[in-house]
Amino acid sequence: MRKTSKNLREIVSAGGMARVMAAHDPLSAILVEEAGFDGIWASGFEYSAAMGLADVSLVSMAEHLNNMRHMAERTSLPIVADIDTGYGNAINVLHTIEQYEAAGAAAVVIEDKMFPKVTSLVEGGRQDLISIPEFQGKVEAAVSARKAPEFLIIARTEALIAGRGEAEALQRARAYEAAGADMILIHSKQKTPDEIESFIDNWDGEVPIVIVPTAYPQMTEARAKSLKKIGVLIYGNHAIRAAVTGMQQVFARIIEDGGIQNADADIVPVSEIFRLQNMDQIKLDEGRFLR
Amino acid sequence: MRKTSKNLREIVSAGGMARVMAAHDPLSAILVEEAGFDGIWASGFEYSAAMGLADVSLVSMAEHLNNMRHMAERTSLPIVADIDTGYGNAINVLHTIEQYEAAGAAAVVIEDKMFPKVTSLVEGGRQDLISIPEFQGKVEAAVSARKAPEFLIIARTEALIAGRGEAEALQRARAYEAAGADMILIHSKQKTPDEIESFIDNWDGEVPIVIVPTAYPQMTEARAKSLKKIGVLIYGNHAIRAAVTGMQQVFARIIEDGGIQNADADIVPVSEIFRLQNMDQIKLDEGRFLR
Amino acid sequence: MRKTSKNLREIVSAGGMARVMAAHDPLSAILVEEAGFDGIWASGFEYSAAMGLADVSLVSMAEHLNNMRHMAERTSLPIVADIDTGYGNAINVLHTIEQYEAAGAAAVVIEDKMFPKVTSLVEGGRQDLISIPEFQGKVEAAVSARKAPEFLIIARTEALIAGRGEAEALQRARAYEAAGADMILIHSKQKTPDEIESFIDNWDGEVPIVIVPTAYPQMTEARAKSLKKIGVLIYGNHAIRAAVTGMQQVFARIIEDGGIQNADADIVPVSEIFRLQNMDQIKLDEGRFLR
Amino acid sequence: MRKTSKNLREIVSAGGMARVMAAHDPLSAILVEEAGFDGIWASGFEYSAAMGLADVSLVSMAEHLNNMRHMAERTSLPIVADIDTGYGNAINVLHTIEQYEAAGAAAVVIEDKMFPKVTSLVEGGRQDLISIPEFQGKVEAAVSARKAPEFLIIARTEALIAGRGEAEALQRARAYEAAGADMILIHSKQKTPDEIESFIDNWDGEVPIVIVPTAYPQMTEARAKSLKKIGVLIYGNHAIRAAVTGMQQVFARIIEDGGIQNADADIVPVSEIFRLQNMDQIKLDEGRFLR
Repeated sequence: MRKTSKNLREIVSAGGMARVMAAHDPLSAILVEEAGFDGIWASGFEYSAAMGLADVSLVSMAEHLNNMRHMAERTSLPIVADIDTGYGNAINVLHTIEQYEAAGAAAVVIEDKMFPKVTSLVEGGRQDLISIPEFQGKVEAAVSARKAPEFLIIARTEALIAGRGEAEALQRARAYEAAGADMILIHSKQKTPDEIESFIDNWDGEVPIVIVPTAYPQMTEARAKSLKKIGVLIYGNHAIRAAVTGMQQVFARIIEDGGIQNADADIVPVSEIFRLQNMDQIKLDEGRFLR
Repeated sequence: MRKTSKNLREIVSAGGMARVMAAHDPLSAILVEEAGFDGIWASGFEYSAAMGLADVSLVSMAEHLNNMRHMAERTSLPIVADIDTGYGNAINVLHTIEQYEAAGAAAVVIEDKMFPKVTSLVEGGRQDLISIPEFQGKVEAAVSARKAPEFLIIARTEALIAGRGEAEALQRARAYEAAGADMILIHSKQKTPDEIESFIDNWDGEVPIVIVPTAYPQMTEARAKSLKKIGVLIYGNHAIRAAVTGMQQVFARIIEDGGIQNADADIVPVSEIFRLQNMDQIKLDEGRFLR
Repeated sequence: MRKTSKNLREIVSAGGMARVMAAHDPLSAILVEEAGFDGIWASGFEYSAAMGLADVSLVSMAEHLNNMRHMAERTSLPIVADIDTGYGNAINVLHTIEQYEAAGAAAVVIEDKMFPKVTSLVEGGRQDLISIPEFQGKVEAAVSARKAPEFLIIARTEALIAGRGEAEALQRARAYEAAGADMILIHSKQKTPDEIESFIDNWDGEVPIVIVPTAYPQMTEARAKSLKKIGVLIYGNHAIRAAVTGMQQVFARIIEDGGIQNADADIVPVSEIFRLQNMDQIKLDEGRFLR
Repeated sequence: MRKTSKNLREIVSAGGMARVMAAHDPLSAILVEEAGFDGIWASGFEYSAAMGLADVSLVSMAEHLNNMRHMAERTSLPIVADIDTGYGNAINVLHTIEQYEAAGAAAVVIEDKMFPKVTSLVEGGRQDLISIPEFQGKVEAAVSARKAPEFLIIARTEALIAGRGEAEALQRARAYEAAGADMILIHSKQKTPDEIESFIDNWDGEVPIVIVPTAYPQMTEARAKSLKKIGVLIYGNHAIRAAVTGMQQVFARIIEDGGIQNADADIVPVSEIFRLQNMDQIKLDEGRFLR
């Protein structure tokens, strides 16, 4: 069942815009695939949240990596792995890339924040960036460490998040492309797409842009496609938000009702979980191999 | 934030019936606590499902244990750990109990199936039980290995699930109580509570009964309390079913809408995830300790 | 640095006898490679011992697997992974093979003991075997689960260890070959090679034999080669015994001397550890990528 | 077998100097205890080396922590955990301390290097220190996060290693004591004890000093005790160096001899490994609990 790492590069260069949905465990990754998305975002934010921890570099690389490996084992979509700052400096990046590629990722996103990072969308969060040359060194390390040329290095600049303005965002994006990045992820926490659209209008590089329209839901896929330079659109945290919503509602109902007599009808039956777990295959295998 | 293992024994002997809800990761455990349940069921079924694997002893003890430890670190409710068959024979049980108690569990449930097990509710599943003396040895090992007397050993008989009938179920329950079990979990996959209620009517032991009313949702908490011998009622898989339901609906909506413009309003905002992650505490700590 | 899984099959079919040395962590695996052996034995016994645990199925599959993966990442020799009984029944074997092959093993050894097992060489150890048809099912599952045909399934019979006699050992070996095993490992705890040599004399199958001459050190490589049917000779536990010997002697010396003034000269310098850790490469990489 | 975290503070305040030996896995920790040392150094250098990795912050906190937890489970000596820089900033330190204390450490050593670090003794290694106020914040975070007052926070200054001179080393040591450190570890890579002895002569703080005499083996325990202010003497890497020496010699012998016929007598027998694994206890437990 282990997937062959698909070529996200092909998907993108075929002119399409890949829609990539966040996941926080292998089951949510399976659901992403079944729903019809083009890729899985192995999100650091979602995984931290699933662990009950703030997204401030508390989760170890080994833990996020292991979770991503299990996603890759159970799905066939390309996985875009969120490696935050690369878990240290350029030396760490060499190790990190080697590990994520071997574990089945199709791409990584590495960001120009200072380690340890603070999650991007929180109000009043500390947002320190490292220098352009230092981050170029990290991108070069990532490019140097990959084995397969179709493994994508996506450089993420947090210049807009950090309030550095569009000019610096463009300067950083150009510098990261020059260092070898295959795509540029530009993040924004504005409530409208204006900031992002202006950046994209003024983007004069060759490589495609990646966006994460969490704060500005007006950015539909149709609108994003009309911008023409967008290679990947990442839905960054909707799996964990949907899961929390589902659990909060069902838990409240059970507490209120003093039982599952009503909640039972609101949720998928146990047999649906069996299907997602491939229990039918287990029964076939028992028939073949158990004596 | 590491919890002091609470005394589930006290909760039960105070006459109340503890309502325990399943969780599959630290975040779902946090939601169980916030919703008002009395304990957390560190479910093997839910954890296997979250890993995208069938519940047939594929997940390693070290993995389930580690997940349970993180739940214990982030919550204060007592955790009832599902240790399946104890991960082997009575020697494994000694090691397993030592590990789960140290990791913060308040109780374990150990079942009389043969290792490797097949999940209980699947239609046509292989359901082999070990002999009564062999399982008594496992219960005695568990009792012998615990450090704190308030750590509960709950013996689960699958006699009804395996179609062995009530007489054998009662015989096994008595034998397990004699071996030192603090409670007896009796499981059933009948669509009505009749089988369970008959067992409870005929139960002549001293220790309380634990039930898992998944297949027979008519068994409300009020009805269970009226039976008078029930110490714990476990909601065995409603967290993962609620999470899957939530994600399937939201993913379908986003695919259909070609964006998050509508789905955004159906799910909790990002700020709710920040709250669950304790981001406010992080900001306070940054103020105190970052220079 | 991740190795491409080498074709142990080729090494063996070229007529040579592969000498495979046990390892218990990536460092000992590196030393095995540097010393000139042909392969690495990812030993369950050594790993259990390194964890301070008895070799009775206490270590989880996920832990041994993870250790083996790290060995594969840091070495280029083929790794023969000791998967004990396959961590359960034939269904577990399907999962286990998938995981070990993906993690970089070149071969696995699976044995016909009952799970949980007891280590083979301990005096008076419980040694229960599963039936021939049941173990054939496990071998067939292993063969069915492998992706690459050069990945070797080595079936290990403990018939001699369990006192079942040569006739049953041969019967089992033939049955396992019929089920698809690529080699047969025959284990013995006799103090001389007689039992093993007699078995090999009477072996009429096609596939090569694997031996583990721990109890009978008279079995040199020259003597083993003269037997002509031996494909692999495994040194099963000499890495951990050498490491323990080294540490016990040096610790005793330091305690006795009240310092390291003498012990320092008896052990490799710190610079030798730096060499094994590839510190020189780190310095080169810092020069290239740190700004 | 889980140890109650011993009070290293008592050992030290009783006037004695604790001798603490490095370990890299539970087995080496067991050997440290059997040899008669007073504590176990859960060394980051040794663990990195055992993983086959350079000691430059490549190993994840979760991995080192897990290894330390297993050491604590199998031994009763106090464990001094090497947490490098605390795995990030002061926020990470809060999390790290919580985790290590819960996992059974008796003390931690945290150092004033910049993350990611480079190991101290390598020639020409990059050695950047963070500012005094920033490190004070980390020490204060550590003190604030511990649950038990007897859990020791040892602040390690790399001022001498970084070539900053004795004045700065003393200034840093005083500042770290003011921030709440229970002891000061002063490290040196000079080939003689002069630098360390001068520092100690000029140390005017209240808290004891910790030394790691790897580079200057002339510093015997007797000489260290004569300095009067030394609370703990750590043998920082002699376990891994002894293990490597033992394996290299035995592997070479086996390759040279073409067999184990001679090497067998040079190393401990298999039965010694069984003893270290507590196989006798397993047999007793089988007698009690297996039916």
